[in-house]
Amino acid sequence: MTKEQLVQQIQEKSSFLCVGLDPDLQKIPAHLRDLEDPFFAFCKAIIDHTKDYCVAYKPNTAFFEARGAAGWQSLEKTIAYLNETCPNHFIIADAKRGDIGNTATQYARAFFEQMDCDAVTVAPYMGRDSVEPFLAFEKRFCVLLALTSNQGAKDFQTTREEAPLYEEVLTTSQTYAHSERLMYVVGATKAEYLERIRQLVPASFLLIPGVGAQGGKLDEVCAAGMNKEVGLLVNSSRGIIYASSAEDFAQVAGEQARVLQQQMAEELKKQRVFS
Amino acid sequence: MTKEQLVQQIQEKSSFLCVGLDPDLQKIPAHLRDLEDPFFAFCKAIIDHTKDYCVAYKPNTAFFEARGAAGWQSLEKTIAYLNETCPNHFIIADAKRGDIGNTATQYARAFFEQMDCDAVTVAPYMGRDSVEPFLAFEKRFCVLLALTSNQGAKDFQTTREEAPLYEEVLTTSQTYAHSERLMYVVGATKAEYLERIRQLVPASFLLIPGVGAQGGKLDEVCAAGMNKEVGLLVNSSRGIIYASSAEDFAQVAGEQARVLQQQMAEELKKQRVFS
Repeated sequence: MTKEQLVQQIQEKSSFLCVGLDPDLQKIPAHLRDLEDPFFAFCKAIIDHTKDYCVAYKPNTAFFEARGAAGWQSLEKTIAYLNETCPNHFIIADAKRGDIGNTATQYARAFFEQMDCDAVTVAPYMGRDSVEPFLAFEKRFCVLLALTSNQGAKDFQTTREEAPLYEEVLTTSQTYAHSERLMYVVGATKAEYLERIRQLVPASFLLIPGVGAQGGKLDEVCAAGMNKEVGLLVNSSRGIIYASSAEDFAQVAGEQARVLQQQMAEELKKQRVFS
Repeated sequence: MTKEQLVQQIQEKSSFLCVGLDPDLQKIPAHLRDLEDPFFAFCKAIIDHTKDYCVAYKPNTAFFEARGAAGWQSLEKTIAYLNETCPNHFIIADAKRGDIGNTATQYARAFFEQMDCDAVTVAPYMGRDSVEPFLAFEKRFCVLLALTSNQGAKDFQTTREEAPLYEEVLTTSQTYAHSERLMYVVGATKAEYLERIRQLVPASFLLIPGVGAQGGKLDEVCAAGMNKEVGLLVNSSRGIIYASSAEDFAQVAGEQARVLQQQMAEELKKQRVFS
C-alpha cells in the first residue's frame, strides 16, 4: 500500500484507528478456547465487527509465537484473512525486530513476502544497516520505535536533556535510504513531546499506542501530532478486543471501535485536515 | 542451565565456542534443498558433527521465520533435537526481541517454555520493563545487545564520547531484578572496548560474534575479555556452517569447529583460567 492510499482510506472512513490484535488464551472468551484454532476464530470475529471503523490492524507477533508453530499458523491465517477481506486496510506486524543486514532481510521477507504485511515494527538500536533492509521493499513500511509509552522508556530514550536518544533516532533515521517509507512509534502518554517530534519528522506517519488504557488523550494527541495528511494512526488493543469476554465480545468490540471512530471524525473536522 | 553448569562444560571441553545456526536455502548444499525439511536436515548434520567442539548453539530465528510456519516448525524440531542429543549445550535463541511487560512475557514463554531454550537475545531500547520479564525465569538467561559489530552500531551506540549508549545499557541493566541472569552481546570487532566493558560488568558472560568472518581476533578478545570464569562465548556461524557446500559440508563444519576449539584450548591455558 502507498502512503497516498492510506491517507485516502482515512479520508473515506473518517478514521485513523488501528486495532491491535493481541490474542491471549487467558483472556479470549471461554467458548472459543476449545476450538481447533481459537486465535484465528477470535481475530476473525474481531476483524468482521471492527473493519468498518478502522483503517489498520496490528497483530502482535509475541502472542502468536507463545503458542509455537500452531500460533505462527494462526498468525499466517489471520493475515491472509485480512488481505482477503480487508484489502484496503494497512497491516502492521508488531514484531519489534532488529538485526543486521542479511538477517534483517530475512525478517523483511518473513513479514512482507511470506505474509504480505504492509509494515513491520523495528527497534533502532543497531542502526542504519538494521533498518534499511526493510526500507528496500517498495510500498512497504518500517515503523521504527522512537518514544515508547512504557515506564522503561526513561531508561535510555529520554535520559539526556539535550538531544535525547529518541530525537537522535528520529533525525538520524531520516538520513537512511528510502526514509520516506519510515513511520515511528510514539507513545500517546508522551503527548507533551509530540510538538517537538512533529518539528523533527513533519511528514512521517506516527503510530500512537496508549490512547485509552495507558491514559493518552485523543484530543491532545491530535492537536499536537496531526499534519496535513493526518499523519497519525492511533492504536487501541485491549480497550477494543477485550471490552467484553462474553459471547457478544465481537459486537462489543465493534461498538468500541465505532465510538473511537466517531471521536476521530470529530478531531478530523476540528483540525480541518480534509477541508 | 545454571551459569556454573555452563562454566563446567567450558572446562570439560576446553571450548567456549558457540555455533550459529543460520540456515539459508540459497547457501545450504544442493542435495538437501529438495528434502521435506531441508533446514532441519542441515542443522541436524551440523549439530552431529560439531557438538564435541562447542558448548553452545545459537539458532537465528530470522532465517527460520523467512520460511513461514514451516520454518517455525524446523526451528522447533532443531531445538528439540538439541535438547534431546545435547542436553548440556547452552541454547540461545537469537531472536533480538524487545517489547513491554505482558508482550515480553509472551516472547519469554515462546522461547523458554514452548521451545526450552536456555537464553534469548533481547534489544534494550525499551528499558527495564522490556527486559525483566525474561529475567524472571530461573535458570534462563537474557542476552542483551550492548555493543554490536555492525556498521550501524555507530548510529546510536557510540555517538557520545562520555557515557555512550552501550555503557549506559551495561550499567543501567545491572540494576534490573535478577541481573545475574543477564549476558551481553559484544561485537569482537570492537576488541578495544572490551577492557572498559569488563570494568562495567566484571561477572557477566559476553556473547561475542564476529571472530573470523568479521575480523575480530581471538587472542585479543581473550586477553581483554576473559574473567575468572572465562565469561566468554565466542560465536561463529558462516565460518563453520558454510565452510563447504559439498556433500561433506558437515564433516568440514566439524573440522572448522575443531580448529576453533583448539585455539580456544590454547587461550584457556594462556589465560590460566582453570589452573
